[in-house]
Amino acid sequence: MDTHRLDRQLAFILEIDGLKEVARQSYLLSGKRRENTAEHSWHLAVMASVLTEYADAPVDVGRVIRMVLIHDIVEIDAGDTYCYDAYGHLDKAEREKRAADRIFGLLPQDQEIQMRTLWEEFETGNSPEARWARSLDRFMPLLHNFHTGGKSWREHDITRPQVRERMRPLQGGSEALWKLAESIIDQAVERGYLAP
Amino acid sequence: MDTHRLDRQLAFILEIDGLKEVARQSYLLSGKRRENTAEHSWHLAVMASVLTEYADAPVDVGRVIRMVLIHDIVEIDAGDTYCYDAYGHLDKAEREKRAADRIFGLLPQDQEIQMRTLWEEFETGNSPEARWARSLDRFMPLLHNFHTGGKSWREHDITRPQVRERMRPLQGGSEALWKLAESIIDQAVERGYLAP
Repeated sequence: MDTHRLDRQLAFILEIDGLKEVARQSYLLSGKRRENTAEHSWHLAVMASVLTEYADAPVDVGRVIRMVLIHDIVEIDAGDTYCYDAYGHLDKAEREKRAADRIFGLLPQDQEIQMRTLWEEFETGNSPEARWARSLDRFMPLLHNFHTGGKSWREHDITRPQVRERMRPLQGGSEALWKLAESIIDQAVERGYLAP
Repeated sequence: MDTHRLDRQLAFILEIDGLKEVARQSYLLSGKRRENTAEHSWHLAVMASVLTEYADAPVDVGRVIRMVLIHDIVEIDAGDTYCYDAYGHLDKAEREKRAADRIFGLLPQDQEIQMRTLWEEFETGNSPEARWARSLDRFMPLLHNFHTGGKSWREHDITRPQVRERMRPLQGGSEALWKLAESIIDQAVERGYLAP
């Protein structure tokens, strides 16, 4: 057994424990606390295995799951950039690229390349799997916001046009979820969870 | 689109948010708090995608990942039974079976059967995928305990024979991880993280 190889794999596995301490803006459905990026990634992976039939193009569900599991690992270094934070987005790509170099670079080279490819595919959205994974990643916070009475929207004075714009990738990934998102947004405005 | 079907799928997805509030005995590597079962399941799924080469029998890694993602979902109702809690184990199987009925039962029937089958396969360990998944599920807390100086072992006065016994399934799943586990246990005793 190549112990150097196993050492590198274990170093990666230990390092990513840090994702459990990266807080997102969205709340647990109970409203008790913000969720962290590790548990969000788990939730997204299970969602991907349940909702596959709504992807507009045929997808390899195993690849989608592996993609969402690692899509936010760079946040260990780069932090979670709130999706409506225009300032934070100025250098987001650069921060996340450096993080990917360091974190995926802990792995043996063959696995570093595999993970890095999967992550870049998600980032660029240039495959049916990536478009579907990005759709799920946009749809999930909509569910969380709606079912907590718009808790994080209200904290940040988010408006309907902002959320609609945020949901746009759904149009290229899942017509069914896009329609559902539109209806959820309408209801959120009606109920006062989201500013018009 | 069958909206009743989608409603059931969304009900399941919302329900499992509760797994983020089930605390395990093991701590984050930073030692700051106990980890929850949702983030543990995420960590295990990424580990499964990195360590496949150490499974003793060839495995379908996609199936292993889907299995570990849902293997603990029953804890939403049944709670996390600490692995060294003999009393809690008396009715664990019954509590978890009822939880599986209710939680997987939220899904449309075809998906309920798929998830239930995957969960039962994990529980019984009757496939190479299940034996490997169970090995990973035993190995991960060993890593966490070792790298937090035996924090949860010391809290519960756990001893070397108990941990060795707990790691036994590794012998049927991964000879390489079993050897590594033995060496980690030895070091843990030497360093005083674990009682002899």
